[in-house]
Amino acid sequence: MRTHFPSHPQVLAFDVFGTVVDWHSGIAREVQALRPALDGDAFALAWRAGYQPAMRRVMSGELGWTLIDDLHRLILDPLLEQFGLADLTEAEKKHLNKAWHRLDPWPDVVAGLTRLKSRFTICTLSNGNIGLLTDMAKYGGLPWDCILSAEVFRAYKPDPATYLGVARVFDVAPLDVMLVAAHQDDLAAARACGLQTAYIERPAEFGAARPKDITPDPANTRHAQDFLALADQLGC
Amino acid sequence: MRTHFPSHPQVLAFDVFGTVVDWHSGIAREVQALRPALDGDAFALAWRAGYQPAMRRVMSGELGWTLIDDLHRLILDPLLEQFGLADLTEAEKKHLNKAWHRLDPWPDVVAGLTRLKSRFTICTLSNGNIGLLTDMAKYGGLPWDCILSAEVFRAYKPDPATYLGVARVFDVAPLDVMLVAAHQDDLAAARACGLQTAYIERPAEFGAARPKDITPDPANTRHAQDFLALADQLGC
Repeated sequence: MRTHFPSHPQVLAFDVFGTVVDWHSGIAREVQALRPALDGDAFALAWRAGYQPAMRRVMSGELGWTLIDDLHRLILDPLLEQFGLADLTEAEKKHLNKAWHRLDPWPDVVAGLTRLKSRFTICTLSNGNIGLLTDMAKYGGLPWDCILSAEVFRAYKPDPATYLGVARVFDVAPLDVMLVAAHQDDLAAARACGLQTAYIERPAEFGAARPKDITPDPANTRHAQDFLALADQLGC
Repeated sequence: MRTHFPSHPQVLAFDVFGTVVDWHSGIAREVQALRPALDGDAFALAWRAGYQPAMRRVMSGELGWTLIDDLHRLILDPLLEQFGLADLTEAEKKHLNKAWHRLDPWPDVVAGLTRLKSRFTICTLSNGNIGLLTDMAKYGGLPWDCILSAEVFRAYKPDPATYLGVARVFDVAPLDVMLVAAHQDDLAAARACGLQTAYIERPAEFGAARPKDITPDPANTRHAQDFLALADQLGC
């Protein structure tokens, strides 16, 4: 493990889906509330699996700039057919699409963020749109200082414009920003832009039955089990 | 006075300088801390007076897109000469320029916003940049759900892109957004875009010695003495 750390950052920017909130349980729960017999686990995984390919269609220029709410709906519509939900009303479909606004934070998140906020500026850095992230913060009591999103930078992670955009918004050097995420690829892209990085273990991101590899990567500035452990490491 | 009001909005978007924070006292105090003999009142008024003309230079295309922090510095430099402060170090000038990040809220603001937040989504809609508004919120304990700014929309108020941008971010109709401001021109521009409007009396915005006209305009949806009175009117 590292024995020397760079100076503490000034800003902590958090990935959201999987890092802050448990999308798998939340989506499974919402769809099973509509149809108790449906395989909520499979539905959640299928919806999430459509996310990266949909973003690639935007980044390639095939689709114009699209909010994640609208990408979620593009992915949802064929799934409704596939899972036997095509008879939902339009209002029910809209409500289900906004399930991503109503995801629960992991149990350590609110207490951890509250501690981290006492010493650092804490913001989101998510591909989710601002409205979605704001609703989610109200729903879960997430005490962000500021909501930053792909929507602000008109680029999705891992575009460098997003990581460097956080530093520019707060008028600090990239090394004064730490990306906090449960995904090594997101962290690697941030590191390439000069940010500090903290990996958070979220072994149940894809469901408790499907534990995720949480092997530490020594390239990260920090590796923490959860936000409380990160607050311990950062002295707050 | 009106006897019929439209339905309550879902989102309250707040003008910031003058409406939420007391820029006059804050700027006067900071500059007098540097030079006790200086006329802080005159300095604050002169700095603020440069703001609209500087924004017009951006909106006309004479200047490229510029953050308010940088506009404040453009205005500040000649004032430093004029007020005998040209001998400040660069670090002192930078610190003074960020006085706009350290403005106190009016006394009713934190309690009023906290009540309003219980029922509505509350956000800023300011020409201030995101970093400035975030620092100010941490400094003053302002409990925003979300910080929206000219920086998000790449347009300054009164450009319709800012008022309509709030509705678009939250995926609601313009009438579901209420602009809350202490300036009739800002409110008139919002109304022209279909937003509801609430005027807040801030008679001491330009200093207690220079009371501002706070005559109600019946075109506004609401007229309130302060944020607590607005919370009363909106039933929270």
